[in-house]
Amino acid sequence: MSDDARRSFWGWGVEGGGLDDDTVSMVRDALGHRFGAAAPAPVEAPRLDSVRLPTPRCSPPASIASIADVSAAERAGHTYGKAFRDVVRGLAGDFDAAPDFVAHPRTEADVAKVLEACEGARVAVIPYGGGSSVVGGVEARGLGRWAGACSLDLGHLDRVVEVDPVSRAARIQAGVLGPSLAAQLRPHGLAFRHYPQSFEFSSLGGWIATRAGGHYATLFTHVDDFVESMRVVTPRGIVETRRLPGSGAGPSPDRLFLGSEGTLGVITEAWMRVQQRPRWRAAFTARFETFAAGVRAVRELAQSGLHPTNCRLLDATEARLNALADGTEHLLFVAFESADHAPAEASARAVAIVREAGGVVRDGAGRPKESVEGDRDDAAGSWRDMFLKGPYLRDAIARLGYVVETFETAVTWDRFDAFHAGVLESVRAAVRAECGDGEVSCRFTHAYPDGPAPYFTVIAPGRGAARVAQWDVIKAAAGEAIVRLGGTITHHHAVGRDHRPWYDRERPPLFGESLRAVKRVMDPAGVLNPGVLFDA
Amino acid sequence: MSDDARRSFWGWGVEGGGLDDDTVSMVRDALGHRFGAAAPAPVEAPRLDSVRLPTPRCSPPASIASIADVSAAERAGHTYGKAFRDVVRGLAGDFDAAPDFVAHPRTEADVAKVLEACEGARVAVIPYGGGSSVVGGVEARGLGRWAGACSLDLGHLDRVVEVDPVSRAARIQAGVLGPSLAAQLRPHGLAFRHYPQSFEFSSLGGWIATRAGGHYATLFTHVDDFVESMRVVTPRGIVETRRLPGSGAGPSPDRLFLGSEGTLGVITEAWMRVQQRPRWRAAFTARFETFAAGVRAVRELAQSGLHPTNCRLLDATEARLNALADGTEHLLFVAFESADHAPAEASARAVAIVREAGGVVRDGAGRPKESVEGDRDDAAGSWRDMFLKGPYLRDAIARLGYVVETFETAVTWDRFDAFHAGVLESVRAAVRAECGDGEVSCRFTHAYPDGPAPYFTVIAPGRGAARVAQWDVIKAAAGEAIVRLGGTITHHHAVGRDHRPWYDRERPPLFGESLRAVKRVMDPAGVLNPGVLFDA
Repeated sequence: MSDDARRSFWGWGVEGGGLDDDTVSMVRDALGHRFGAAAPAPVEAPRLDSVRLPTPRCSPPASIASIADVSAAERAGHTYGKAFRDVVRGLAGDFDAAPDFVAHPRTEADVAKVLEACEGARVAVIPYGGGSSVVGGVEARGLGRWAGACSLDLGHLDRVVEVDPVSRAARIQAGVLGPSLAAQLRPHGLAFRHYPQSFEFSSLGGWIATRAGGHYATLFTHVDDFVESMRVVTPRGIVETRRLPGSGAGPSPDRLFLGSEGTLGVITEAWMRVQQRPRWRAAFTARFETFAAGVRAVRELAQSGLHPTNCRLLDATEARLNALADGTEHLLFVAFESADHAPAEASARAVAIVREAGGVVRDGAGRPKESVEGDRDDAAGSWRDMFLKGPYLRDAIARLGYVVETFETAVTWDRFDAFHAGVLESVRAAVRAECGDGEVSCRFTHAYPDGPAPYFTVIAPGRGAARVAQWDVIKAAAGEAIVRLGGTITHHHAVGRDHRPWYDRERPPLFGESLRAVKRVMDPAGVLNPGVLFDA
Repeated sequence: MSDDARRSFWGWGVEGGGLDDDTVSMVRDALGHRFGAAAPAPVEAPRLDSVRLPTPRCSPPASIASIADVSAAERAGHTYGKAFRDVVRGLAGDFDAAPDFVAHPRTEADVAKVLEACEGARVAVIPYGGGSSVVGGVEARGLGRWAGACSLDLGHLDRVVEVDPVSRAARIQAGVLGPSLAAQLRPHGLAFRHYPQSFEFSSLGGWIATRAGGHYATLFTHVDDFVESMRVVTPRGIVETRRLPGSGAGPSPDRLFLGSEGTLGVITEAWMRVQQRPRWRAAFTARFETFAAGVRAVRELAQSGLHPTNCRLLDATEARLNALADGTEHLLFVAFESADHAPAEASARAVAIVREAGGVVRDGAGRPKESVEGDRDDAAGSWRDMFLKGPYLRDAIARLGYVVETFETAVTWDRFDAFHAGVLESVRAAVRAECGDGEVSCRFTHAYPDGPAPYFTVIAPGRGAARVAQWDVIKAAAGEAIVRLGGTITHHHAVGRDHRPWYDRERPPLFGESLRAVKRVMDPAGVLNPGVLFDA
């Protein structure tokens, strides 16, 4: 994409970045074939001049007028995150939840000024990084006592400020998006190696605030473990933690802001642990006749101490929906990467473990190669490309009238079989009741020694704008089953506003009280992201 | 030791577990030789009937009388942790800080009862695991408004309650000590693999409450990363976190209790990630002419992605004091262990990295072997034995009249050279001023990609009971230098009461306010461990 490509105000990415018409036609045919009825023609993307955008309830306070934007484009573009329910509402021209203005701070001092001015004007402030929330995290919903809402866009704070090549760390402003971060680190021979599916349109600050899950499938999977220190602007002042490789001095202050989702302060920069660019890569794909065998292979890999970089299992439905297999095989992608050494021993041992568990691996697969872009194991390479393009595909399927969404969790291995069966049963029943028919598939995005992070995808025929309500019923069934069967309501999508009913049950009550007590310290007026995580 | 060996009330471990007289004589001769004057004869260990133990200020409340102990042995044995300044006071018969009684709960309900009864009686409660604090964490000092102090000894909560071999996790009561935990896991083929130097006399709950550093020198070094969930009894009720392999649902509740040092609640049990017992081990020792070369080797190993289990660097002084080398060489111990595979490739690569950095490694060293107890690389094996016996040796040196203590920290690699030089300079100056002469040595206990955890040992001639004050001056110089030069006041010894002056500076002020706000939620009367971490 070019630097000046315009962000889509209703869907993923940039305008013109979506699937071309021929591809949309192919998707339409495939889905029509699968669901036994011709899919409707794709609805057109909405035009900005025809959407429903409420009159602002307030103007930007004078002290921040110079960095505030009240244009329709900015207000519409900051109304929603990028969940299915956001896209459906966007396609329907429904921008009722629009913020009253968007602030674009250029400095940390500007951020403090926005908080002060908005608190004075009784305007809620919603921190906005890349805007890729899929849990209602950036939506000005249920404002209650607030006179209006300001979307605080950190996009101008987008620089790598300082690089420490000796410690392999960098001081990075929170508003930087994935590709720009990668580009700024590359001249130093360094890389961030954190690729959530939102990589192209999500920010460092957003990753930290939501405990994003990234590239590594085992070992350090959450961004949490890469934070060395951070600076946070709160309405009470700045919190700066000490840059340290490790510490045992009291509870970790960083861990309090990790997952705080903009409710306690605005992360403006962080010292992050970065990586040397990998030189070697060893990858292989395994095929399994049963999902259980694939699960066993992942568990054994996760407990082996080999720490594969990639260890992603797709069930047969997921593999078929992604055109990677015919629906009879479950696929496992395994990869090792290293900047230091060719991981031959580790990869060979992983092949042995996977074969022992019943996986079919091509002879000779998994040998380390010097890493060259594009030179990847075929299915895994296709998978990766599809991974980053996924949200565009999702938008196309939404335009074709389907319900299409994902949800994710984590659970210990001992519970997994019953958990997987129970979640599928509950969600499939809800899909049948709401949509008549539908696909529910499962993959593992991350794997720990004590359990996997399963990720589910739902595709089903829907009924126009009623699809928001249809999805909400399905999602409720999923949330209920997840919490009842011992999972977490989110492994890496965060809580936002949408996950509140289940998070409120998962969170120990006294911990909830504690978060509210901390909120009163950092943000006594409660101006920051009201409704997210807890009620202040 | 036998199960009924009696714990020493003034020093490390069990009575009779210390060095024998011949060994003490050898130590005396060696130190006399080093410091150019005959060391005084060792002072005798104090006798319980001759120590200064204050009259109790209060009796145990009636509701917990059946689990309370007011004996001199129990009160004296729970007066101090195991720091040098504790041992010196113990040897001098000074038990002025004794708790008024010791409670021995047998159940979680008992723990809640103790909190309730003590709050009602205005008696402060000091949670006590193994009693190995070296930072005044279990000492009833500065009670202020409290009518007395109860030492809450979790020792009866010592069972592995449940084992989940599929997820490799176990539900473990908090009062269990290291050896018993190992013994209870062994029949399941599992191990905890967490060996702080206090291993024999410290507890799971203590490790969690103080963010203990353990066996692994790289990767997951703190106990933090092995916690799956926990149960905590607070004066407001029980907090139970959800057992999960990973989650992104809000800030981690476990991370709030990790490092809370008994100020927010009493950890009664935890689901912990455990390990398969290692089958293979590959170890080697490297010798360096300069410390800088050893530092470079550790940094490159820590950044290599090889994740050695052991990666401990001893400077020449430390190596000499431990009789492992003659004082001209710096030593590095590197080891890999695995339950899954012989780590030949990793070990060979580590040897190459170390040699490239200037380390001398014996040809053929580092080849994996099937792991047999005792079958270790020689210097590393000696080091390990000495490691666990270290506190007994420390007590003997204290009995000989020396100042002998350690302090530790962590700092990023970019700052390390100046940090190391500056800390040594400040501490050596303080040692000269207080003691005339002395040794200050440094080793690395843990190593991260972005920095090491240096650990310093001080041995110097002292002046009887004045050694507490002498040490306090030296420690203040260390703390000042550490905080000024960018380190943390503690990597794994915790904060307790002794580290407060520097922790208070290291901790962001609004985070300190937040901890106090959380304290008011969990422990509104402030009955738990007053004076530790913060003033409520």
